[in-house]
Amino acid sequence: MGDTRETQMGREIAQQPQAVRDTLDALIPLRDRIAEAYAGREQVLFVARGSSDNAAIYGRYLLETHSGVLAGLVSPSVATHYGAKLDLAHALVVSVSQSGQTEEIVQTQQWAKECGAATIAVANVPDSPLLADADLGLLTQAGPELAVPATKTYVSQTVAMAVLGTALSGDPSAYDDELATVPGEIERLLAERSGVTEAVAALKDSAYAVVSGRGLLMGTALETALKLEETCLRPVRGYSYADLRHGPISVVTGGMSAVLVSAADGPMSTPMIELAQDLDQRGATTVGIGGTAQFADAVDVAVGGPRLTEALSPIASIVPAQLVVESLALSLGLDPDNPRGLAKVTTTDPD
Amino acid sequence: MGDTRETQMGREIAQQPQAVRDTLDALIPLRDRIAEAYAGREQVLFVARGSSDNAAIYGRYLLETHSGVLAGLVSPSVATHYGAKLDLAHALVVSVSQSGQTEEIVQTQQWAKECGAATIAVANVPDSPLLADADLGLLTQAGPELAVPATKTYVSQTVAMAVLGTALSGDPSAYDDELATVPGEIERLLAERSGVTEAVAALKDSAYAVVSGRGLLMGTALETALKLEETCLRPVRGYSYADLRHGPISVVTGGMSAVLVSAADGPMSTPMIELAQDLDQRGATTVGIGGTAQFADAVDVAVGGPRLTEALSPIASIVPAQLVVESLALSLGLDPDNPRGLAKVTTTDPD
Repeated sequence: MGDTRETQMGREIAQQPQAVRDTLDALIPLRDRIAEAYAGREQVLFVARGSSDNAAIYGRYLLETHSGVLAGLVSPSVATHYGAKLDLAHALVVSVSQSGQTEEIVQTQQWAKECGAATIAVANVPDSPLLADADLGLLTQAGPELAVPATKTYVSQTVAMAVLGTALSGDPSAYDDELATVPGEIERLLAERSGVTEAVAALKDSAYAVVSGRGLLMGTALETALKLEETCLRPVRGYSYADLRHGPISVVTGGMSAVLVSAADGPMSTPMIELAQDLDQRGATTVGIGGTAQFADAVDVAVGGPRLTEALSPIASIVPAQLVVESLALSLGLDPDNPRGLAKVTTTDPD
Repeated sequence: MGDTRETQMGREIAQQPQAVRDTLDALIPLRDRIAEAYAGREQVLFVARGSSDNAAIYGRYLLETHSGVLAGLVSPSVATHYGAKLDLAHALVVSVSQSGQTEEIVQTQQWAKECGAATIAVANVPDSPLLADADLGLLTQAGPELAVPATKTYVSQTVAMAVLGTALSGDPSAYDDELATVPGEIERLLAERSGVTEAVAALKDSAYAVVSGRGLLMGTALETALKLEETCLRPVRGYSYADLRHGPISVVTGGMSAVLVSAADGPMSTPMIELAQDLDQRGATTVGIGGTAQFADAVDVAVGGPRLTEALSPIASIVPAQLVVESLALSLGLDPDNPRGLAKVTTTDPD
């Protein structure tokens, strides 16, 4: 336990309740301006890479399932390499980048404007080009992030997605009471660390891991996979529930581990129990994060998740996964702050 | 070599030139009706799973980069599990399913109609529910496919994507002369099998493989990964070029193999050379399919690809990958027709 405060990643994980509070305070007052930027448009298109892309996937599902707004993801190469001429007059393009200066994302946002889109940028660095160029900038309030793995900046991006999703819904303040409980839920998860040690023990010996989630928790599953892979330097694959069942589940055998991320309610909570049972029968060691009581019973190791409705769960569900990743890296003798021996200050894409 | 004609998968791979010819003959005359279905709409949204989804990814890039049509992918769960209420009056929804009877896809197409979308279905089974329910059905002409891994049905779906993409471009017949050469190119690839034996030798001993491609060839890379994983029962991950460079490349080390799929021209052909060199420096064994002469020089094993422009290359670039997969499965003592001991006739999703 004590070791987790000794890493920069651990300190930044612990700063997340404050980052969520500050980001909510900064962005909720901008809901009217978000709605103005969308006025007359028919869909939202996200532009992002890496962890920011995983946050955008949450935003996409939230918009479609709770706000009645069609949403999708733009492939930046369509802009940067193919220079496609598309009509985006009906789109609001939301670009997401921690640094706000990833060249590919900045270029794609410029392209989107030239194609007629309205633009909103989500970034954590004031005065960054992405924010400066957008019709509306949403500055997340995570503060400087020094560890290489994104934690508090990712969580702040998910807060921005929740503010965006509620701003474009018919009842923007409907979730405000519950949003106010999210920092406290994250504090509880950080204090309890329920199942984290057991999950690390289960994952430490597996040569290969898959991670799966579905719907609103899909982005959380992909982010968990990315963090495990980047920080623990082992191949980890994130699958949607459907894609995993659609063939690749055949490679799951004894000796593998499967990390499943679920919400405590919503239409995916029952399918996730069935997936856990299926993977268990194939001999995989299953680690479940969150979910219902039956889900916790169905997995080999249950890691506690947030007590939040599915729509907001992605803001906090990543937190126990971060604790597992940091602790697993330490137990593997790796430096979670800098697993590859690289500096965070990069000339390449830092998102 | 001789063994490849002894499997059903091998026979169906060999039937692909005819499947392409027949599908072109059947679908090119429907271009006007495709354009009619799109008239007044502003974007195309694909609905698909598994191999069909990989064909749709090609369709998406082709529409955006060559036809000037915004395109995206729908998450079926938004319809089937969340019952989202979206306005799709501005969309043409194109559903792709080999069987045309995958319940999830059929349901999502019905939902799309209720949301106001125009609909086109691409399927290989006449009178299937998906074709019957669509505003316009595009029946691919692969004939019955008996081996579990999709080969000729996938290639026929890519032909449908090429017909769709050209139908919605400003000059529908611009590629017709080159489209007519595709069956002959596939015949040449099947006869020459250039580099296939060497690729199997390189892949046989690697515990883990990644597959990457970019832009128009992204779907081919994902289909190659899916086929390797399903048929050879080993974990294989398909990455976009950008996602691979964006972190996961750090897990690439000696003992791993990387399969890279490239076109012989287009804006991605140079970045793919750089990726091959990067992976080589990290100690991976690199197998390149197609690409430029410099690309073939940069990889450890060069597998011959089609002599086609990037826009049409995805129809034929999968063929050498199929030959590698079939041969690798046999060399591993697996039955490529039925790697999991399952019947093709399933009550679950057959796409």
